[in-house]
Amino acid sequence: MPEFFNVLPPEDALRILLDRLDPHVETERVATPGAVGRVTTGAIVPLEDLPALPRSTMDGYSVRASDTFGASEGLPAYLDVVGEVPMGRLPAVGVSEGQAALAHTGGLLADGADAVVMVEQTQRLGPAAIEVVRPVARGENVIQVGEDTRAGDPVLAPGHVLRPQDLGGLLALGFAEVEVARKPVVSIVSTGDELVAPDAAPAPGQIRDVNTYTISALVESCGGVSNVVALVADDYDAQRSAAVEGLAGGDMLVFSAGSSVSSRDLTARVLSDLGAPGVLVHGISIKPGKPTIVALLDGKPAFGLPGNPVSAAVVFDLLVRPTVYALSGCAPAPRRPTLRARLSRDIASVAGREDYVQVRLAGQDGSLAAEPVFGKSNLIYTMVRADGVVRVPLDAGGLYAGDDVDIRVY
Amino acid sequence: MPEFFNVLPPEDALRILLDRLDPHVETERVATPGAVGRVTTGAIVPLEDLPALPRSTMDGYSVRASDTFGASEGLPAYLDVVGEVPMGRLPAVGVSEGQAALAHTGGLLADGADAVVMVEQTQRLGPAAIEVVRPVARGENVIQVGEDTRAGDPVLAPGHVLRPQDLGGLLALGFAEVEVARKPVVSIVSTGDELVAPDAAPAPGQIRDVNTYTISALVESCGGVSNVVALVADDYDAQRSAAVEGLAGGDMLVFSAGSSVSSRDLTARVLSDLGAPGVLVHGISIKPGKPTIVALLDGKPAFGLPGNPVSAAVVFDLLVRPTVYALSGCAPAPRRPTLRARLSRDIASVAGREDYVQVRLAGQDGSLAAEPVFGKSNLIYTMVRADGVVRVPLDAGGLYAGDDVDIRVY
Repeated sequence: MPEFFNVLPPEDALRILLDRLDPHVETERVATPGAVGRVTTGAIVPLEDLPALPRSTMDGYSVRASDTFGASEGLPAYLDVVGEVPMGRLPAVGVSEGQAALAHTGGLLADGADAVVMVEQTQRLGPAAIEVVRPVARGENVIQVGEDTRAGDPVLAPGHVLRPQDLGGLLALGFAEVEVARKPVVSIVSTGDELVAPDAAPAPGQIRDVNTYTISALVESCGGVSNVVALVADDYDAQRSAAVEGLAGGDMLVFSAGSSVSSRDLTARVLSDLGAPGVLVHGISIKPGKPTIVALLDGKPAFGLPGNPVSAAVVFDLLVRPTVYALSGCAPAPRRPTLRARLSRDIASVAGREDYVQVRLAGQDGSLAAEPVFGKSNLIYTMVRADGVVRVPLDAGGLYAGDDVDIRVY
Repeated sequence: MPEFFNVLPPEDALRILLDRLDPHVETERVATPGAVGRVTTGAIVPLEDLPALPRSTMDGYSVRASDTFGASEGLPAYLDVVGEVPMGRLPAVGVSEGQAALAHTGGLLADGADAVVMVEQTQRLGPAAIEVVRPVARGENVIQVGEDTRAGDPVLAPGHVLRPQDLGGLLALGFAEVEVARKPVVSIVSTGDELVAPDAAPAPGQIRDVNTYTISALVESCGGVSNVVALVADDYDAQRSAAVEGLAGGDMLVFSAGSSVSSRDLTARVLSDLGAPGVLVHGISIKPGKPTIVALLDGKPAFGLPGNPVSAAVVFDLLVRPTVYALSGCAPAPRRPTLRARLSRDIASVAGREDYVQVRLAGQDGSLAAEPVFGKSNLIYTMVRADGVVRVPLDAGGLYAGDDVDIRVY
C-alpha cells in the first residue's frame, strides 16, 4: 500500500503555496454600484474633502456660539432670526452678533455662524426671534469640512473586499467606477469512472457528479469565476488533456477526486507533469481531507481535492478559498465569523490531526447547542444536514460535551 | 417640537409587521447549479434511495464478513480473489465462501459480499489469493442502500436558503432544477432636496445620494432584487408618486430619509396615505436609528429609514433584512455569525435603548480586539472604517473595556 510522504498541517500547506505564489493581479474598472465582493487593487484616495462645507447635524438654528454662552432656562439668550438656509443651497443669509438663521439637518450654516442650536433647546418668540436655553460650543452640532474624509488621505487599502457601505463611501466621493481585480477563473475538472453528469440517468453502479457544482458554488462565493472543464474518466491521457485545457482557460485548477495514493489515483501524476515546481504537498493532517494535493504549475495554483464531498468542502475552505482571494490580491482572506455554541456530546479525535466535524445547531443565539452530525464524509447529505462545522485542534484529543465551541456556519 | 409617540424595541417593531404580513410567495423553477442563496418553497423529497446499491468506502476486497471472523496477524483468513468489480459497473462476479473480489472506493460490491476488507489489512499471496489479518463486521466499509437519503424522506424543508452543498445534494438525487421563491423586489426611493445622483457634480451645499446604493447592495445580499425608483425632493406630491410607482413595481418599499418628525419629514405622511393599515411603528428604541417607520400598505411592507447612512444600515439589518427573507418564505432569517472580540474601551449607553456601535477589529481570531469607531452616524466613513458592529443591550448602561463581545462582522 503506498503512503503519503508529506503530510502537513493545512496552514503549513497553504503557506508553502502562498509563499511561492506571485499573483499578477489584472485590474478592471467596474461601476461602483455593482462592485460588492470585488477586491480593490489600489488605495482609494479622495480628491476632495467630505463634506466640502460645514453642515448641520440637527434641525435648529445656526448661530455664533459666543451668543449662547451662559444661556439657561432661567436666563435664555435672545436671538433675532434673520432667515433660513434651505437644504441643498448655499446660504443667502449671514448672522452677526445676536442673530440666528434656521438650519436643517444636513444643510449648510449661515455665513458667520459657527454652531447649531437644536430646535429642542429653543423657544420661538413670535415670527422672528428665539430664546436659546442652553449654550452651544463652537462647532457643536456641525460636521466640519473633511470630517468624513480628507482629500489625499486614503480611505480604502488595496486588497479590500468591497462591502455595501464601501459603495456608499465611494459614491459619496464621486467615484462612479472603481478599479478592482479581475475575478480569478478557477477551472474545475471532475474525475471518476463511476460519474455521470447530474442531468444524466446513472446506470446501476454509476453516480451523479455533484462535487463540480458544489465546488463551483464555493468558488463563486469567494469572488471567483468557475470554469467547468470536463468530467473525465480515470484515464491519464484524458485527465492530462483536461488539466491542460483547465490551466489554459483559468488562473487556477481544481481536480476533484483521484487525489489519494492508490494506483487508481492519477491526480498527483497528472499535475506533476504539467509545470514547475509541480506538486508541493501531498497529504494534509486533517480528517476528513487527508488525501489532498497542493501544486504550483508555472505560476498557477492547482489542487487535488478528495472525491468525498464533505472532505472536498473542508479542504476548499482551508486551502482553495484563501488562494482564490490571494489571486485577487487579498491576503489573508477575509475573516470568517462564527457562532458560539455548546457541544451536546463528546467528539473523539487523535492528537496530530485536525478534525472537522459537521454539526447541527439548535436553540437560540446566545444559547445554541451544537449536535455533531456523525455521517460519513462520502455522504453529501452529512453536510446538507449540517448547519456548520467545528474544528478539533491538532493537539487536542477531542472535544467534550458542554464545551463552548466556535462553529463556522454555512 | 413633535415627538415620537410609538417608540418600540426593534424586535417588537419587527414582530408587529411580520405578524400582520401574509406573504404570497410566488415560485419559479431555476437550474440547480445556479441556485445558491435562493429559498426553497416546498419540501424536497427524493424519489430514489441514495445510494441505490451498496458501495464500498475503501479500496480493498469485498467479502463475506463471516469468512473473516477470528482473523488475526497470527492466524489470517485465506481468501481466493475471484475477480474485480470495476468502478461504475454492476458486478460481473460473485463471491461464495472463501472468496473475495477486488473493490474500489465508491464502487459496488461483488454479488454475495456483505463487507469490504481494507487493502491495508490484507497481504497479497500471489495473483489470486490474499490473507486477511483482521475481521470485518457485516456492513463494514460499506455505504448501505439509502444511507445518504431515502426515497420519500424529505431532505430540505421549505424556506431553506440553498448553500453550495445543497446544490450537490439536489444534483445527487437528479434534481437538475429546483423550485424556489421568486426574488422579492424591493423598491427604493431616496429623498432630500440636498441630494444629487452620485455621478452628478454636486453644487455647493448639495451632496451625492449614497444611501440608495448601499441599500441596494444590502437588498441583494439578502436575496432581494433592488428596484431604484427615484431620487426625489422633499415634496409631498413627488414623494407620493414615487411611492406609488415603487409599490406598483415592487413587493416592498424602502424610503430613505425623511423618517423623523420635523415638518420637513414627509415619509410618515406619504406612507400613511397609500394603503391600509398604514404606519404601524414610528420610532424604535435604538441608537442610531430611532427615526424609523414601519408600515404595511395593502399587504406590502414599507419602511422609512433614517437618512443617516449608518442609521440606515443598522435599521436595514434589524428590520428590512428579516422582512426580505420573510417575503421569500424564510422566517426567521438565517442566523448571522459573529466574531468574539475583547472591547478595547468603554462604551456608554443609557438603559431603555439599544446602541449599535461600529468597531474596528485588530489582532487574530481567538484574541481579537474591538476598538469602537466613534464617528458620527451621519458620516458614511464611520461605517467604511469599521469591520463590524457591536450591540449594547436595551437594559445595559454600557459595555466596558475588557468585556468579551460578539461582533456582527460586515
